[in-house]
Amino acid sequence: MDSIGEAGGAVASDAPGASGAVVLHGGDLATARRLHPQAPEPWIDLSTGINPVPYPVGAIAVEAWTRLPGRDAADRLIAAARVAYGAGPETAIVAAPGTQALIQRLPDLLPGPDVRVLGFTYQEHEAVWRRAGRRVERVAEAPALVGADVAVIVNPNNPDGRLIAPAALAEIARAVVAAGGTLVVDEAFMDVIRPEPGSFPAGLLPLRPAGTLVLRSFGKAYGLAGLRLGFALGDAALVTRLGAALGPWAVPGPALEIGARALADRAWLEVATARLEADAARLDRLLVGAGCTIVGGTPLFRLARHDDAANLHHRLAQAGILTRAFAEPTWLRFGLPGSEAAWTRLAAALAVRPGAGKHASE
Amino acid sequence: MDSIGEAGGAVASDAPGASGAVVLHGGDLATARRLHPQAPEPWIDLSTGINPVPYPVGAIAVEAWTRLPGRDAADRLIAAARVAYGAGPETAIVAAPGTQALIQRLPDLLPGPDVRVLGFTYQEHEAVWRRAGRRVERVAEAPALVGADVAVIVNPNNPDGRLIAPAALAEIARAVVAAGGTLVVDEAFMDVIRPEPGSFPAGLLPLRPAGTLVLRSFGKAYGLAGLRLGFALGDAALVTRLGAALGPWAVPGPALEIGARALADRAWLEVATARLEADAARLDRLLVGAGCTIVGGTPLFRLARHDDAANLHHRLAQAGILTRAFAEPTWLRFGLPGSEAAWTRLAAALAVRPGAGKHASE
Repeated sequence: MDSIGEAGGAVASDAPGASGAVVLHGGDLATARRLHPQAPEPWIDLSTGINPVPYPVGAIAVEAWTRLPGRDAADRLIAAARVAYGAGPETAIVAAPGTQALIQRLPDLLPGPDVRVLGFTYQEHEAVWRRAGRRVERVAEAPALVGADVAVIVNPNNPDGRLIAPAALAEIARAVVAAGGTLVVDEAFMDVIRPEPGSFPAGLLPLRPAGTLVLRSFGKAYGLAGLRLGFALGDAALVTRLGAALGPWAVPGPALEIGARALADRAWLEVATARLEADAARLDRLLVGAGCTIVGGTPLFRLARHDDAANLHHRLAQAGILTRAFAEPTWLRFGLPGSEAAWTRLAAALAVRPGAGKHASE
Repeated sequence: MDSIGEAGGAVASDAPGASGAVVLHGGDLATARRLHPQAPEPWIDLSTGINPVPYPVGAIAVEAWTRLPGRDAADRLIAAARVAYGAGPETAIVAAPGTQALIQRLPDLLPGPDVRVLGFTYQEHEAVWRRAGRRVERVAEAPALVGADVAVIVNPNNPDGRLIAPAALAEIARAVVAAGGTLVVDEAFMDVIRPEPGSFPAGLLPLRPAGTLVLRSFGKAYGLAGLRLGFALGDAALVTRLGAALGPWAVPGPALEIGARALADRAWLEVATARLEADAARLDRLLVGAGCTIVGGTPLFRLARHDDAANLHHRLAQAGILTRAFAEPTWLRFGLPGSEAAWTRLAAALAVRPGAGKHASE
């Protein structure tokens, strides 16, 4: 039995879909270890955009493990998400075991043959619609989304960090809906974006967008990607159908409990975001010092351009540091190191003085 | 915003599906508390068939929470499941965040208008096919399944415990497949059934059934229903499509780790099953002493008949003990008490001497 088939729903980081399309993801340390058996341990995984300093999991009530996840725990999570994301009382919310589980379900719920994705972006969006037999077009500018049956924007974008301001995005949403379509906005990395001007929460939801489905991811900003928790927020009819498709007890008890606690802890997010912003700036300096140009990013990851990115990716892997390469041959995406030891190893592997990243432009 | 829509995928214990069909489940203590505000705390929840003495969760690697669930962890879980369930190397396996998540996906994968379910049984099976627009027939005898496009058997059955021996079930599977159909066997409660003769594992998988999809649930026997972990095992093409439908990272990291550890711990399951068998016999004596007739069950739950089951259900609820009622007005299903205190309260609420259950027939 081929291990791809076995791993299927359990991990499937390179499982072929029904159409045979393969999406490669970051975070695959097992493959990196196989390809670079002599690399020093422990590996430093900079191939994802996950906060390397996680929200403390803390104590978990035994009932969260032992009982079927209950309505009270779910209600507490939904209430915390409503406040954290700035959603109004008219916005319906459904929780799922990861945003990917929601993305997988969208083609069942949104009909129409013409899907347009503002790209290049997170590739699972195009992949799920193609697997469902839809006509998928990648468009470079948001106005080209108008007229699609389903329009998809990742905001801020992964991997380049392109950020559409909420007011401009609300304008696009209105135009897509007026033309008979539905807009899906994946705000996977929005938690650590500061709105301008003002304070949290950022994103589209405080503007009460009609006809729009917003996706939010818990695991990236809170550094708990293994927990699997994501949300869809928007129109009540659509969200209710998503909930029915997911079925009862879709979110594990520990995720309900940890998610509710973390989303209510705005002080932690404020401190984490400030640290991430500072570390992103530090990473930029380090990468520029190593001959990269910063294309963009968010406080959780940076997209660098390098004339010989493939060689740099290989050289870092030989040093036990995994980064994310793309089909675009000059791109390399870097997550943030989570410790001074990791910063030092990254600086050394980039062949600059260890202190250069920290002080070069200070 | 209606709380049903909000809770959707997070809990949805009574969320209406697209067709408006509502399935009521056990385990809803929140509703029980609302209906019986004067009942003593803590409530004793006997409304599900979950082992009240859970497998110890133990220490969880921090990476299980923080990293995207990796292929290595998934492979370890699948390997443990293969041994635990007695599946051969030709059997494909996919893990999911709960068996319910797999049931929700079956209509997308198995075509054909004619679905037959051996029943009465776990109601979500009929519900998902009806929501998908299929013609669903409930049949009372297994041979009537032959000729269906999709045939569903829960074995052992919930709630009456009706058990079809593996050899007989393999015969049914061959007949269903020979007639052009697919057999789905939900073995949610099979872990605690002893095969005759011999030892674990029981169930259909050791007989290598072709054209059959077997579902196994982790949370019930291991007392960790909040963890959400289930498996589909069978034909490689079908299981691979299930995995693709679930998408990457479908199972949280802690579930991969705890599941792999528990499924490999056959000594724990042996001791747990012996205790559950003894407790089930003790529960039977207690219920018979209270005027019930035992219809059937498994070591995880007992189905009792009582002339005035509705009143007994109400009386127990007033005493803070939740049981599972059915549309069949004389039925009441009891899970097992998990402590001597719970046994004592149940005995008192059933209005028999506390010691009667333990010693009446000894």
